[in-house]
Parts: sequence; C-alpha cells; structure tokens
Amino acid sequence: MVIVLQPKATENDIEIVVAKIKQLGLEAHISKGTERTIIGIIGDERKIQREQLALLPKVENVIPILKPYKLVSREFRKENTLVSVDGVNVGGNEIVVMAGPCTVENEEQILSTAETVKSCGAKILRGGAFKPRTSPYAFQGMGEDGLKLLRKAKEKTGLKIVTEVMESNEVELVAEYADLLQVGARNMQNTKLLRTLSKIRKPVLLKRNFSATLMEFLMAAEYLLAGGNDQVILCERGIRTFVEYTRNTFDLNIIPVIKQLSHLPIIADPSHATGKSDLIMPMSRASIACGADGLIIEVHPKPENAVSDGDQSVRADKFAQLMNDIRPIATAIGRTIAI
Amino acid sequence: MVIVLQPKATENDIEIVVAKIKQLGLEAHISKGTERTIIGIIGDERKIQREQLALLPKVENVIPILKPYKLVSREFRKENTLVSVDGVNVGGNEIVVMAGPCTVENEEQILSTAETVKSCGAKILRGGAFKPRTSPYAFQGMGEDGLKLLRKAKEKTGLKIVTEVMESNEVELVAEYADLLQVGARNMQNTKLLRTLSKIRKPVLLKRNFSATLMEFLMAAEYLLAGGNDQVILCERGIRTFVEYTRNTFDLNIIPVIKQLSHLPIIADPSHATGKSDLIMPMSRASIACGADGLIIEVHPKPENAVSDGDQSVRADKFAQLMNDIRPIATAIGRTIAI
Amino acid sequence: MVIVLQPKATENDIEIVVAKIKQLGLEAHISKGTERTIIGIIGDERKIQREQLALLPKVENVIPILKPYKLVSREFRKENTLVSVDGVNVGGNEIVVMAGPCTVENEEQILSTAETVKSCGAKILRGGAFKPRTSPYAFQGMGEDGLKLLRKAKEKTGLKIVTEVMESNEVELVAEYADLLQVGARNMQNTKLLRTLSKIRKPVLLKRNFSATLMEFLMAAEYLLAGGNDQVILCERGIRTFVEYTRNTFDLNIIPVIKQLSHLPIIADPSHATGKSDLIMPMSRASIACGADGLIIEVHPKPENAVSDGDQSVRADKFAQLMNDIRPIATAIGRTIAI
Amino acid sequence: MVIVLQPKATENDIEIVVAKIKQLGLEAHISKGTERTIIGIIGDERKIQREQLALLPKVENVIPILKPYKLVSREFRKENTLVSVDGVNVGGNEIVVMAGPCTVENEEQILSTAETVKSCGAKILRGGAFKPRTSPYAFQGMGEDGLKLLRKAKEKTGLKIVTEVMESNEVELVAEYADLLQVGARNMQNTKLLRTLSKIRKPVLLKRNFSATLMEFLMAAEYLLAGGNDQVILCERGIRTFVEYTRNTFDLNIIPVIKQLSHLPIIADPSHATGKSDLIMPMSRASIACGADGLIIEVHPKPENAVSDGDQSVRADKFAQLMNDIRPIATAIGRTIAI
Repeated sequence: MVIVLQPKATENDIEIVVAKIKQLGLEAHISKGTERTIIGIIGDERKIQREQLALLPKVENVIPILKPYKLVSREFRKENTLVSVDGVNVGGNEIVVMAGPCTVENEEQILSTAETVKSCGAKILRGGAFKPRTSPYAFQGMGEDGLKLLRKAKEKTGLKIVTEVMESNEVELVAEYADLLQVGARNMQNTKLLRTLSKIRKPVLLKRNFSATLMEFLMAAEYLLAGGNDQVILCERGIRTFVEYTRNTFDLNIIPVIKQLSHLPIIADPSHATGKSDLIMPMSRASIACGADGLIIEVHPKPENAVSDGDQSVRADKFAQLMNDIRPIATAIGRTIAI
Repeated sequence: MVIVLQPKATENDIEIVVAKIKQLGLEAHISKGTERTIIGIIGDERKIQREQLALLPKVENVIPILKPYKLVSREFRKENTLVSVDGVNVGGNEIVVMAGPCTVENEEQILSTAETVKSCGAKILRGGAFKPRTSPYAFQGMGEDGLKLLRKAKEKTGLKIVTEVMESNEVELVAEYADLLQVGARNMQNTKLLRTLSKIRKPVLLKRNFSATLMEFLMAAEYLLAGGNDQVILCERGIRTFVEYTRNTFDLNIIPVIKQLSHLPIIADPSHATGKSDLIMPMSRASIACGADGLIIEVHPKPENAVSDGDQSVRADKFAQLMNDIRPIATAIGRTIAI
Repeated sequence: MVIVLQPKATENDIEIVVAKIKQLGLEAHISKGTERTIIGIIGDERKIQREQLALLPKVENVIPILKPYKLVSREFRKENTLVSVDGVNVGGNEIVVMAGPCTVENEEQILSTAETVKSCGAKILRGGAFKPRTSPYAFQGMGEDGLKLLRKAKEKTGLKIVTEVMESNEVELVAEYADLLQVGARNMQNTKLLRTLSKIRKPVLLKRNFSATLMEFLMAAEYLLAGGNDQVILCERGIRTFVEYTRNTFDLNIIPVIKQLSHLPIIADPSHATGKSDLIMPMSRASIACGADGLIIEVHPKPENAVSDGDQSVRADKFAQLMNDIRPIATAIGRTIAI
Repeated sequence: MVIVLQPKATENDIEIVVAKIKQLGLEAHISKGTERTIIGIIGDERKIQREQLALLPKVENVIPILKPYKLVSREFRKENTLVSVDGVNVGGNEIVVMAGPCTVENEEQILSTAETVKSCGAKILRGGAFKPRTSPYAFQGMGEDGLKLLRKAKEKTGLKIVTEVMESNEVELVAEYADLLQVGARNMQNTKLLRTLSKIRKPVLLKRNFSATLMEFLMAAEYLLAGGNDQVILCERGIRTFVEYTRNTFDLNIIPVIKQLSHLPIIADPSHATGKSDLIMPMSRASIACGADGLIIEVHPKPENAVSDGDQSVRADKFAQLMNDIRPIATAIGRTIAI
C-alpha cells in the first residue's frame, strides 16, 4: 500500500501514520515529494484494511499495490489448469463446446437435442432444471425430474452434463446428476453457495455476474480455490451497459485479460451475452479468435416454442453450420474442435 | 403486445401471425401502415411469451404494452402501503431513520452505537451478523452470536432490529431475532430466498441490486407479494456506472419514479451508495427532499477500527449533526423525523 | 507517481527505471517490499507522461499521485468563485434559477415565457438558437434570428440571457447577444471551442458530457481557466447508464464532490437529466438539498407543441409551483432564492 | 407509432388523440384491449414529434415503430457500399489495415513507421496532426506541418492517408492532404462538422462516440448521407462502462449488428478500444472473425517515447507479427488481407 498525505500534513501527521503502520506489524517507508509526502508499506498489505489508514488525519488516499486474489493468479501457478469434466478436458488445446436448451422441458426435447449436438461435435450437454427467473409467474424449472432426464440423455449419448445449482442446500442433489455444476451469473457472489461448492469433488462453471469487475470475478473463483476446489472454469456471458441492441454487452476483452492474470480456463456464452440468435455465429467465431477455451450455446429444436430464452437459441438444424463455421477459426490459431 | 412486421411481409405472413395469436387464446387487430403492418393483441399478453411471436417469419419486433408486475403496482393498490416494523411504521408521513454499524463486532460496540443512534432519533438499529464479503479472506460475520447481541441492544434501547439474511435455510433463524429482514443487493434476485421470505410474517427490506433495472427491482418485490407477504420496504443503494468518485452511483431518481408506479415505501442508503462518509450528509438531505420514506445509515464509534466499511460510516459523535441537518428538510416538504 | 515493479524485477531493472526518472529531471525514491519493489518520484510528475515509465521492462503499474488539474482546484483557490452574469452572481448564498424553452421558436413564445419565469423569480432566461440535434431531419434552431428574440426578451424583462454556442467561429456572434455562453454536453471536450471561449470576457456555462468522468469534466474547465477565463459555471445534466426510466441518470453526487475539490460554482439541470416533466419537481428539490448553486429548467407555454424536448419541459403555469416548492428547501439549508 | 392509453382513458380521451393524429395529416387505427386501448398511426411517423402525442391527456406511452434513419439502412440500399480511399476499397472482400502513430511527431518517426507498416501489408497510414487532448497542458499536434509530413510519407510509400479533422472551418485544409477524413469519437455528434463533411468529395471515417447508442451512431452517419456524401466508413473504438481493465470496453457486437442494419462498411480500432498493447493482437483477430471490414492500429517505433497513447501502440517491429496473425483468420472466413 501507498499512503498519500495531504499537502498540509505536518511532521506530526506523518508520525501518526507511521506509528499505526508499525502497530499493524508492518514497516513504513517515507518519501517526501515537492507537493506531497507518500508513505509506502513494507510487508503483506492484505492483512490490513485500508480504512485503518485512510481515516487517519491528513491522509488523502490509500492505494493498494498487491492484488487481493492469490490462488487463482498466474503468479501462484504458471501453467494453465486443466479441468476434467468426467474425462473431457477444458483448458487444453482442444476447444470444448457445451450445448443444449435453456430449460429441460420434456424427454423428447432433451433427448433429441442431445443427439443433435452430440452428432455435431459438442462434448457437454447443457440444460436447466432449477431456473432463476425474473418473474414469479414464469416457469421455474422441472427440478429433480429435469436432472433425471439429463442423466438419461447422458446414458444415451455419452455427453457430459452441466446444469445450474442455485442454493447451497441443493448442491448435494445436483452433484449426483451433474458432471459440471454451474453457478449462474446472479449467484456469482453467493458466498454460501461458493463455500459449499469448494468442498465437493466436482468441477464448477462460474459465470460472471453482469456487473462484476475483473477483481470481483476472480475473487469469487478465489472462494472456490481457497476452500479446496481448483477445478473451476470461468465463463463470460455479457455485462450490463447502456447499449440497446444486445441483451447484454458481450465483453470478449476479458478473455485475453484472464489468460494473462489467471491459470484458470475461460469459456464464452454468446447466447446469453447477445440475446439474439443471429449474433451467435459471428460472436462464437470472435470468442475463439481471442482465446476462449470453449463455448456454451443454447440450442433448441423449436426456439419459437421454448419455455424460455427462445430468442437467443440456435435452431437445432443450424447448429451443425455453427460448428462448421468455428472450426476453421480454431485451426487458424492452432487449436482444435472435435468433430 | 404489438407485433411489427417487416416491410416485405405478405398477406400469408400476416395470416400466420394472426393464426398463432388465436391459437394462444387471444385476439388480433391488424393495422396496415404505409411502410409496415402492425398487429395488436387483445387479451392478457402476460400469459404468452414474446418469442412465441418474435420468431415467426417476417416479424421484425414484438413490443410489450402491459407491465409485467401487478401486485406491487399503483394500479393494483392506490394508497401507500404502511409497513409496520414491530410497531414502527414506514411509508407514512414520518421519515424513519435506521442506523448502526456495518457489522456487529462485539457487545460494547453494538450497545454503545445503539444508545447513540437512539438518542438522536433513529428508530431501527442496523447491524450485520451474516456478511456477504467479496474476499474469502475477510471476516464473514459473527452469525447467531451477532443476532444475540442485536437482541440485547433491542432490550436495552427499544430500537427495532434490521439485519441481513443470506440464504433461505437461515430465514427461520434470523426471523427469530430480527424485526425487519434485509435482502442484500447481491441477493435481490435470489428467488429461493424471496420465496421463503414471502411465507413469513415479518417485513422485508429489499435492497436494489447495483445493476437492477426498475422492472427487475419491482419484479423481485413481486415475488414477495405473490407469495403472500406485502410488508415490503424497497431500498435504493447505488448502481454501478463508469463513475469513479463514488463507490456506486446513488440513483435518487428512482425514488419519485417508484412513488408513481408502486404503493410500496422506499428508503435510501447513502452509505453504500456513495461509499464516502463526507457525502452522506448532503445526499441524506437530497434523499429526503426527493421523497424517500426513510434512510439507512452506517454509524460506527470508531470508523478507522471498523472490521468493514469504515470508509462509509459516520462517526457516532457526528450522527447527531446529521439528524439535525435533515430535520429542516423533512419540515420543508411537510414530513417529520422523530427527535 | 509511484512505479510498481513486477515481483521478478532485478537490481538491473530497478536501475533502468531510476536512470529514466533522473533523465526526466526528477528524483527517485526506492522502497523494497516483501513481494514487490516500488519507486516513488520526487518532483512535479505532471511534466512527464506515464508511458515513459510504464513501458520500461518489468514495470507492472504506474500510479499518478497528483491530480492533473490545477487552476480549478480548491488547493489553488480556497474561496468559492463568484461568477457574475451581467450582475447576477452565481456561486454565492443565493440560488439562481435559469429557465426558458429548449428552443426559441417565435417572438410570442419567448416573450411570454420570459414574462412568466421572471414573475416567478428566475433571474436568467435560457433558449436555444443554435441546436445540436441527433437527427439531420430535425429543426436546427433559428440562428441569429433566435438570438435577436432573446435580446428583445432581455430588454422587456431585464432577465439575463444564456444560450448555447456550438463552434469556435460562432463565439463572437453569440457573445454579442448572450450574457452567459453555454457549452453543450456534446461539446464539453471540443477543445477549439473551449480555447476560443477562454479568451472572451463573458462567463461560460460548461455542461458535463453524459459520459464524462469527474477528471474529464474538471479538465475541460481547466482549458477555460488556463486560457484566462475563470468565470466558469459547471452544470450536471445526467450521465448515460443502463437505467431505462429516465432519459439519463441524474448524478447529483457530483455536486458535493465538486464543492470539495473545486472553487467553481455548479448548477443542476433536472430537465435534461431526467427527461420527464413529472420528475423535475422532486429532483429540483434534491439538487438544492445537496448543494447546487442554481438550477436550469426547461419551461414552455405548451410543451405538447414544443419543437423539441416537450417531454421534459414544465408547463409555464406550473413553474410558479416549482419555485414555491424549492424555496423552503433553500431556507432549510440557509440559502435563498429570489421571489 | 403506437399510442398506449392509460387504463382509465375515456371515449373522449380517445377522440382527442384521434383528432390530433388527423390534424397532423395521418390516420389513426384504434384497438381496444382488455386492459388498455392502443392507437396505431398510419402514415409516415417521422414527420411528427412524439411529444405532440405523448403529452395529451391519459396517454401512457408513445412507441415509435419506424427507425429514424433512412439513407444508411439496408432497406434503402441492399448491397454493401464500397468506399474508395484514393483507390483502396473498403467494404469489399479484402480487409484493409490502417496503421501508424497516434500523433505525427517528426519526419523520421512518420517516415520510418510508414515504411514499416507498408512492408507488412497496411494500405493506409494514420497519424494525428490536430489532436483533441483531455488536458490543456498536453501537446495538441503539429497542425499543418504534420499534414505536410503525412503527404511526404504518402509520396514515399504510396500509402493513403487518414487523419482527423476537428472543426468545420478546418475541413478544407485537411481535405487538401488527407485521402480519408476522420471524425473523432468526441466529435461524432458535432453536427456542423458533419454537415461540412457531407459536402466534400472525400470519404469520411466516422468513429463511434464512447457513449453512443446504435441509433445515435447511425444518425450521425445519416447526417453525412443526407448532405450528399455516401462515402462513409464506420469505426467501433470502445464504449465507456464500469469495466476497469481496459481503457474502454471494445464492443465488437456492434459489427455484425451494423452489417445487418446498414450497407456501410465498419472497421475496428483495438488500440483505442482496449488501451493496452498486449490486447491488440487477440482483439484484432476477434474483430476480423466477427466481420470487421478493416482495422486501424496504432504503431510507433518506440512507444515509450511517444508523445501520446504509447500504452496502446504496437512496437513497429511487432507489427509484422500482428499482420501474420490475422491473415489466417481472414482466410478462415473467406476474406483476404494484402501482403
């Protein structure tokens, strides 16, 4: 930390700050500039709170120097983390596609979609059984019956299963069925849920909240690693801005940034990020071009009949085209996508 | 709903849309303009999903006409709702001030703060026992021990208690101690928590998520009313924008807007909204001037020693000044604040 | 400036940075922490560019300590600046109201509005002669004819005149008629216009761009003061956010912040900020409650016939009510508004 | 337009709206729903202002149906517009790269950069002679001397020249030297500048303002086309959001959206959008993958000595690598980049 004093700070003010720093078990280093004095802290600043210094007299600003996250950082671990979703590796050279309907609606819908996406090269089936909905009057998901249909789809196709878990006391149930447990954007900072997930032996797909900063996103992942679960896949799914032509603003820039700062894999969700089926194709290509380790795409046999998110689903018969479209991009950057 | 067709839509395309509307149990009304045909729906559009029409051929746009919320709206209930917090009414002519530390830290801290804020005119004591923290390494609250200290403070001072509940399976526990249960900004759309709270006989303080639209905010309240609990107080606590000089952007504009659209009371939280203790005074005045039914303010005996949010806490000895400062504003608009 | 080095920086890397700092005519101060070395700069950092240091090897971050603005700061000038608009002082104890139509439309409209707002206590008449419009097909203002009508209104009522100037080569013309020259939000960073205005002997009303940070806003004012014109009134008129129920998000928080950091007066524009006539009253009260030195309000005899911005105009016959509504707020904080 | 009436609207209220519509020369079409009556307008709604109807009694909302832009739309012109920059076509199958320093600093700098970027496949040289700077104390560009150096670079290399023009009265001067006149982000809605540029015989590069909506961006282009200049290239260069790790948020999503709605070419500026040289490479790939017709990239021989924007410049010797990196992406989508 660097403490910047106000121009009018006296020797006595400086001494008060230095005394406080020593009392906190750290050392102080004073630099007197032409306009202001600044005081550097030597030692692990993460042990203290900035208010302990910021509220002292004549302190103008306290600037943290160290990053607040540790276990998720590249400095902590140099090599990319490979996350195994029941044998399917995410974070390696192969780009992994997850696909399926927003919501599990019935056996026919989920099985036929599973067959389609499997035949096109997807490795993981998505489908919601517990759904967070804006309206109390909207369908809230099939619950455990939905999970059972996902298991059936897995048995038929061999696809791995990713599905959302919404509360800590449902983690055990969902973990029985799912190979990858999704934390939805609205729950990114649900710390009780994160803690419970940090104790299980299954990987977690952590979606970025639509107003999360980079720091908050990485700190949410830090909860999982700090609790003992380092099998974490991050997911960018759009942020909230003033922009009116997409449901959210797909912030692809975070992908190369995460790749620099963290060893965790990151995938992209063009369906939720754009909210428009005709943008999924170009933005899937862009996601891969800038380094995403995978995609998660909403696919529905008949989007106009979907109980949710039909607007942003790819029709099953167009999904093959999407997969064919992204493969040359993967090749162009020296990566692969399964056929 | 109004369905706007593309300029190139044919008679046949129009018929397909009309047939779909009829199939959904509603009636269609066709207007052929000079450039586009639009089709109005007669009947309750809330029963259908916009994708059912938006994905039909040659449909350019589907525009909802009715608001998605019902029970929270002024149209549903003309008079202001009065929420009784164990006898303290929020939503009437008197402006109610809630005050106390971010986190309950120990008996001395909470009792002394309670005495102070009580003596200045606050009616409700705030204090966190279960804390949602960005960092897994930060203090997460005293839990039930904190709740017990809050009860002790109530016994000593007569102040009512507001405290946060973070998960549906803790609702019962927190409801034993609290007079008003707070849903934090990060949990505004935690639908399981909202559902559980909709079934209890205690009032709820629902804080706006920092990226919630007006519609999402009111729909979260609708969860509570739809489940049977109409004792709901809304709270504005800042939104996330590009602005760099406040922790969030305090969006006071929502206060008169909510007053127009809903019968529920709304209070303001200048501490979280601005994140700076020296902005709390002017923005408290502004909150009352534009119609807030109350304030919730962080007060701490020694902010520089607070375990959390010291930056945005008012020092206990300055709280009296704040209360004296806002009373003339209340008087100016014909309302009162207790002494 | 503080230069933070990467953990892997060697003695040699440190020497390179120090050498560069000395070459730039400044002194370096090294602090070796447990994880990182930081280097403080002694001397006026405003003389150098951060890239000169940020791009050196093993430099992780360069953090500026000094604020980039100087003449507009409270540190430069302790007392509030009083801006005289042809004898009407802005920035003193009296709150000054500016009012009038968005656009000057014809003689009858501007004269009748001027009489009305004058009789209610407004001191300055607003009205656009040169209009920046989003659409090329919209009315772009009466030009000099509009300015002449404003002069006639001044002669009849004694109101001072504020009107927008859009380009540097029109400054001379507009300055002939106006007592206060407005720089619109879209032109806040039009540096040629700011330079030209910095050389004239008339005061300037500088509106905040709807995506300007505090720093950018103050730096735009710094252009005016640096060129020699310190008669500058700032104006908050809403920022662009995700929020959907107001035209912009009225960011009142900047008012007390500016009061701390700068000696310049700041007024508020609830008409443009909210875009809704029924929000102008409560948000005018809030503006004054948090410290605004004045208001600028759109008033039109018949808003439904206005050629622009009718939505956000107060009907002339309701303006008296607005003025009566804000006076008790001014009184409550020890200020006055003319009758 | 569709006018939505309040639930309590009477027959008389409906008649008032219908009468107003007829008075405006249009026809009304009434649909009585179960909760609200809506009235559709038949005729060209662009002729009227929404306030003319929105402010009538009992009107709840007025929803525009037609888009406000016309000449820039795909409906107006089906085929892609090809913009010729002195013979270099933008908007065709070939992706065009523009590159060069932020600011023209001296002859050696601009000539050596020109040689480098030319040898790597760039077709157009960028370089600022008139610079809009946030600070009045920063270098504001070489002016006409800078333009002369750009001409010299053109003579030596054959590269075409793009440079910014900041005011209408400088258009003539800049047009003498430039092959493509850039309107900077801050001037996107400088209507006088747009009007002047609409009358010249040279193409215009219109950069999106960092808080412009899609509609505002297209309406700014509409100014150019409406005035007679249809040689317009759009450019995405980042929007302002809460995000902290990039200078702006590069909003690539607008690229496929513009391609759907407009016939104009659009290029991407990863330098300004991200503000970080190590993000330029991945985001350049992403830009091309989602359909950009070109790139504009800041290249400097020694970014650490650049007078501006060194942080976001690619070092000249790494530019070849960037070009080699994006070519396979162009190939993957069936387009080309010159060698």
